[in-house]
Amino acid sequence: MRYAGRTDVLVVLMDKGTTAAGVLTRSKCPSAPVDWCRQALSGGKARALVVNSGNANAFTGAAGVAAARATAKTAAKVANCTANEVFLASTGVIGEPLEAARIEAVLAGLAEKAAPGNWEAAARAIMTTDTFPKGASRTVKLGGAEVTIAGIAKGAGMIAPDMATMLSFIFTDAPISAEALQGMVSSAASGSFNAITVDSDTSTSDTVLLFATGAAASRGAPRIEARGDRRLGAFRAALREVMFDLAQQIVRDGEGASKLIEVAVSGAVSRRSARRVALSIANSPLVKTAAAGQDANWGRVVMAVGKAGEPAERDRLAIWFGPHRVAVAGGRDPAYREDDAAAYMKNKEIRIAVDLGLGKGADTVWTCDLTHDYITINGSYRS
Amino acid sequence: MRYAGRTDVLVVLMDKGTTAAGVLTRSKCPSAPVDWCRQALSGGKARALVVNSGNANAFTGAAGVAAARATAKTAAKVANCTANEVFLASTGVIGEPLEAARIEAVLAGLAEKAAPGNWEAAARAIMTTDTFPKGASRTVKLGGAEVTIAGIAKGAGMIAPDMATMLSFIFTDAPISAEALQGMVSSAASGSFNAITVDSDTSTSDTVLLFATGAAASRGAPRIEARGDRRLGAFRAALREVMFDLAQQIVRDGEGASKLIEVAVSGAVSRRSARRVALSIANSPLVKTAAAGQDANWGRVVMAVGKAGEPAERDRLAIWFGPHRVAVAGGRDPAYREDDAAAYMKNKEIRIAVDLGLGKGADTVWTCDLTHDYITINGSYRS
Repeated sequence: MRYAGRTDVLVVLMDKGTTAAGVLTRSKCPSAPVDWCRQALSGGKARALVVNSGNANAFTGAAGVAAARATAKTAAKVANCTANEVFLASTGVIGEPLEAARIEAVLAGLAEKAAPGNWEAAARAIMTTDTFPKGASRTVKLGGAEVTIAGIAKGAGMIAPDMATMLSFIFTDAPISAEALQGMVSSAASGSFNAITVDSDTSTSDTVLLFATGAAASRGAPRIEARGDRRLGAFRAALREVMFDLAQQIVRDGEGASKLIEVAVSGAVSRRSARRVALSIANSPLVKTAAAGQDANWGRVVMAVGKAGEPAERDRLAIWFGPHRVAVAGGRDPAYREDDAAAYMKNKEIRIAVDLGLGKGADTVWTCDLTHDYITINGSYRS
Repeated sequence: MRYAGRTDVLVVLMDKGTTAAGVLTRSKCPSAPVDWCRQALSGGKARALVVNSGNANAFTGAAGVAAARATAKTAAKVANCTANEVFLASTGVIGEPLEAARIEAVLAGLAEKAAPGNWEAAARAIMTTDTFPKGASRTVKLGGAEVTIAGIAKGAGMIAPDMATMLSFIFTDAPISAEALQGMVSSAASGSFNAITVDSDTSTSDTVLLFATGAAASRGAPRIEARGDRRLGAFRAALREVMFDLAQQIVRDGEGASKLIEVAVSGAVSRRSARRVALSIANSPLVKTAAAGQDANWGRVVMAVGKAGEPAERDRLAIWFGPHRVAVAGGRDPAYREDDAAAYMKNKEIRIAVDLGLGKGADTVWTCDLTHDYITINGSYRS
């Protein structure tokens, strides 16, 4: 496969009775594994997950579909389950035929060696241009019992919201139905994986899967069937935290990133409008290069607000870089000193806040700066 | 002003009876000069144009409005006309107060020195990060008389469609009413200035103005009042050519650009849909960095089609790099040889063609690659 000398296949085996939910890319050109997962999710049951990094198996035609099916069948044999209890994800180059035989050849061996708790090795196995493995976990009460949520993720480029922007696999021992899991994972995606953007490019392979083995039932955790079950409160909050944590790790590791940028928009006519304005700022190459250059260039923030196509009035706009209000009432803040903002821009984490002064809509997204390293990484990815 | 040691104010004086039309930025945070032009265009008459490069006079509040008014009043005195026959454009840093007095101080002197035909000096005066002056002209018959269309433009970064993406001023001696001019300039913008993108960022100051002095009437050119006048055919075509030529010069001079990229989409459900898919490809940082790296990475084109949100079916998609069909029917073209495409990617001008296989909608846009130089230019613009 692609990453010679590196682990590039991950197999996860799950207990009987494991339920599954997920959110998949909205790309009109999804990969074969994404199509496979969409179908498997309708069954709501999982016993195995197979991930390969190096080849996305996207835009590979009938051969790609066949490769996905063959991988799932082999994994089903190894895991002693049906093929539609096997979930697949692939990441890497688009358009290269995937040689399923090379994955199949290692599946049985990997499954034999499978052991609980090797999270870091799992996170490493799914990396591509990532510079560090990404994981997060929380322990929380469900009924009277403690349950754990643990997730891993990968992603550094081709990252933009509108589901799902990368690969993330989250596991819990809580006994929760697929339907209830689905409600929680969809809702938590909005403020986590859908609120980050590295380069505005949405992958063909973006996949977030949430698996619940139910093992905690033996320790007294109640079985949860309904989406609205009130006992889910703490679990839901912890799941949000895990997903938020993983998403933040992805954007911090954005290709070539030297800074994390939080963009908070308030005073919009709606939350949706606030998000669009925030993304217009977060995706602007000129805002991102200014951040890379440590330039408090708030004029480019004005530009990005103006081009968003959302309701905005120049003379009601206010802009902050961290604690420094730089613009207000249609012009530069009279109290603003360039030196203050210039010093602030040297930080590794920058917050750009915009108040549109129109309504109560607010939202926050995260991005990174656009540096020479992004160009270097992506100008020579395949060669 | 900003560009010390460089010409940075342009004054154009026009004959009595000159008509005016234009297209202005759709930014919600337009500059004071854009607001000024919007109002002046309702009068439809022009005698003077004042352009300064170095300060955009955008997001400068009441002081910016006053600076625009003061400049127009002084220019009106110099040109012996009313203020609403004066058109203004500014380009440069956003958010810095414009010292109108410094422009006013040089207006009378510039007007005295004004001489016909110094197009290159005019084109140079409006440059910012441009690396060459941009001009184009055509001569064409109107009725029995020859008329000339000559235009200049500036723009290299903060370039994206959705009107107007830069400054361009076009002049003709044809005697054409403001209303008829407006119809032609709006329609020609779609395939020219609105079909180019350097970085997806739309400026607060984008301005295209078209002035017709009517001087050719003395040589027998007919006075044209109505938009639909049939005698406009050749003039309309020549105006399109001038605007297309200027727009192409802008994208060729895109900040840091090493390659011109044409993106042609066909087989879409509509022309509008084709344009959206084309822009999704042309604005993708991953497509643009691949071009910079001379990498025939058509997988990223698949990605950009998929994320556009427009109707597309993976298995009907075909992609060409120049003459080489790289993908067809949902997979790599069986006849495709990577060496051919790799050699093609070394060209200075690249054509990416996509057929969606769904309908008859087609459109073409132009962009440039995304290089280290873009980061260098924009990571240190103000400092």
